[in-house]
Amino acid sequence: MRRRWGTSRVEAFSDGVFAIAITLLVLDINIPTSDLDDLWGALKDQWPTFLAYLISFLAIGGVWLEHHSLFSCLRRVDGMMMRRNLMLLLFVSFLPFPTRLTAEAITVSRDAERIAVALYGVTLLLIALTLALMWRHAARDRELLEEDVADVVAEQAERRSFAALGLYALGIAAGVVVLPRLAAFGYLTVALWSVIDARGERERPPEPG
Amino acid sequence: MRRRWGTSRVEAFSDGVFAIAITLLVLDINIPTSDLDDLWGALKDQWPTFLAYLISFLAIGGVWLEHHSLFSCLRRVDGMMMRRNLMLLLFVSFLPFPTRLTAEAITVSRDAERIAVALYGVTLLLIALTLALMWRHAARDRELLEEDVADVVAEQAERRSFAALGLYALGIAAGVVVLPRLAAFGYLTVALWSVIDARGERERPPEPG
Amino acid sequence: MRRRWGTSRVEAFSDGVFAIAITLLVLDINIPTSDLDDLWGALKDQWPTFLAYLISFLAIGGVWLEHHSLFSCLRRVDGMMMRRNLMLLLFVSFLPFPTRLTAEAITVSRDAERIAVALYGVTLLLIALTLALMWRHAARDRELLEEDVADVVAEQAERRSFAALGLYALGIAAGVVVLPRLAAFGYLTVALWSVIDARGERERPPEPG
Amino acid sequence: MRRRWGTSRVEAFSDGVFAIAITLLVLDINIPTSDLDDLWGALKDQWPTFLAYLISFLAIGGVWLEHHSLFSCLRRVDGMMMRRNLMLLLFVSFLPFPTRLTAEAITVSRDAERIAVALYGVTLLLIALTLALMWRHAARDRELLEEDVADVVAEQAERRSFAALGLYALGIAAGVVVLPRLAAFGYLTVALWSVIDARGERERPPEPG
Repeated sequence: MRRRWGTSRVEAFSDGVFAIAITLLVLDINIPTSDLDDLWGALKDQWPTFLAYLISFLAIGGVWLEHHSLFSCLRRVDGMMMRRNLMLLLFVSFLPFPTRLTAEAITVSRDAERIAVALYGVTLLLIALTLALMWRHAARDRELLEEDVADVVAEQAERRSFAALGLYALGIAAGVVVLPRLAAFGYLTVALWSVIDARGERERPPEPG
Repeated sequence: MRRRWGTSRVEAFSDGVFAIAITLLVLDINIPTSDLDDLWGALKDQWPTFLAYLISFLAIGGVWLEHHSLFSCLRRVDGMMMRRNLMLLLFVSFLPFPTRLTAEAITVSRDAERIAVALYGVTLLLIALTLALMWRHAARDRELLEEDVADVVAEQAERRSFAALGLYALGIAAGVVVLPRLAAFGYLTVALWSVIDARGERERPPEPG
Repeated sequence: MRRRWGTSRVEAFSDGVFAIAITLLVLDINIPTSDLDDLWGALKDQWPTFLAYLISFLAIGGVWLEHHSLFSCLRRVDGMMMRRNLMLLLFVSFLPFPTRLTAEAITVSRDAERIAVALYGVTLLLIALTLALMWRHAARDRELLEEDVADVVAEQAERRSFAALGLYALGIAAGVVVLPRLAAFGYLTVALWSVIDARGERERPPEPG
Repeated sequence: MRRRWGTSRVEAFSDGVFAIAITLLVLDINIPTSDLDDLWGALKDQWPTFLAYLISFLAIGGVWLEHHSLFSCLRRVDGMMMRRNLMLLLFVSFLPFPTRLTAEAITVSRDAERIAVALYGVTLLLIALTLALMWRHAARDRELLEEDVADVVAEQAERRSFAALGLYALGIAAGVVVLPRLAAFGYLTVALWSVIDARGERERPPEPG
């Protein structure tokens, strides 16, 4: 017999993880006390930290929107979907680490920058991959979807996630081969696009009355 | 076709971010181990930290009350409202950084204090601006509002947010031109007022029965 | 016209703050890297940290239970109750600071210990006081209470909170006059009692059917 | 008269603690600034940190799934269940400490490693024990269970938790007597199994309609 879960507590737990991960990012913005004498200069020197903060905020915001969209189409969750959801949360809650690492590495050396930016991109790519696999699983198992969700909806969403994945891969390549900072601005663009182009909730049929 | 979301998961996610941002503030109150010998003196020297803690706590509390009030009037959320809500969360979750910076800068130099207090005020001002823009969007698009919400409610709320914005701008000006600490007490007053004068939820018509 | 709020979003926001405050406590348990050579000894030396962790965990757990109990009796929240609830959250989210301070001060000097333990006790006392004032406000304004809640319920709960307050005051006095560590064990006893003796939710009448 | 609580606010509070504990783990992954020059080497040297992160993430994920499963079978919560739930939250929110300690101790000395791994295992064991005691209490008091839950469900779940407990005990023994790192991989296996083998929610009978 297949195991099943309702969606509400999975949504609540996932929302908790998203909200915490997105809010913890600020803990990594710090001005060393010794730099307070020239605070204006210190703030300008911290631009990689602010950039990384913005990228990760938008990336997690975009994931939350996509997760919101996916779960509004789901009727129930099975074991496979649950495990993929936990994988998604694992990568999302890990994101503050490469965020911080990238912000620090940019000021050290081109080599450190390259490795940090690649690790950052791989984490973002794994997030997009997991989302794509969640949509694919929903598309292949009609029993998980609400009845009024057309097959094409899940398939389009899956393609969207694979497109994000491809763009992150391009960003990583650009960062490793050409210029690490280029990759960071690439990630920013993809994350911004994921927020702006977010799909809404499943349109529920109007309640009779 | 316009994208739409229900309000409940947006409320839950936003509440998570507000709750975390308001609780993380305490992590920045620290007594260096070397100061424990004269703990009473060390606590008194930390007054800027306690003041900044109180300002940000009240400011976030006031934002939460206003958000609560706004969402009780909303029937649904569209893409524009969703993006403005994410912008609000971005500024709110950023707030612990200028809070900490202000607390540290006050003991260093007048110059650092001025810059920190201005950055703090600008963050508070952007929060008030985003809230005003959310109310404005709700006021201009009746489709987002519950049917029994009078136009005047959203317009009044928008004016209230612009008033807070103006007061924060005054505070910033006072801080930069006159005395930085003046600005801090100005922010405290506005934040306190936003909590005390908070509007309630939309009065729901009594259920028939 | 009085302002009013429903209880559900207030509960969700408060639960968020309680959950975060109770979980952040662990961040203050640290073994310095230099002490890892003699880890067993280092862990034993950290007993004040573990004790403080346990006190604050139980105290916040007890507050959550009491809050749960109170809100199950409330029909709605007015401006006064909302402000007292925010005050409660202010003191609860502040608690990790005196917790950490007490754990650190115990190993430094009797004087630092005395001040830290007093600050800790005052925070716990203010939490109990705010809870008592919330129950008192509910008891005096029948409009806030569900119809089937007897007056005596709110009055008993108010007395319970004042009793906790008195016990914390005794603990502070014992800590300042006699021995600071005595106070810490006093707080532990009160917090433990607040969890063990917690009242349940309002018994709802069975739904007809 | 027995005290009772509904399940929804207990679930919400517990989910908050689980979500925060699982997300805080990332704060303990750090690359010292001095190691950024050889970032690739530094990342490889941090393998115990990544391993400990993964173990604790999976362990908390598994506890959340089991908690989800348990509470879907509960009709209400009594004082005993509430206290055991708080004990569970105490051990779960404590978990980030032994996680961090184990990651640090592995690079110091065999002796520190042994103690850290034992403390880690004991915390995981206490979590499994508390879950087993919660299931046992549910199995012995039919009044707490939903009517359509067969006795055998709670008994099987209790046995599962005791099996996890036994496996953690074996891991601790292997770590103390043989090789500490062996224990860490043992914990990873049990945690992974607790996620993969998770039982679903109680199957609700279809609503008439």
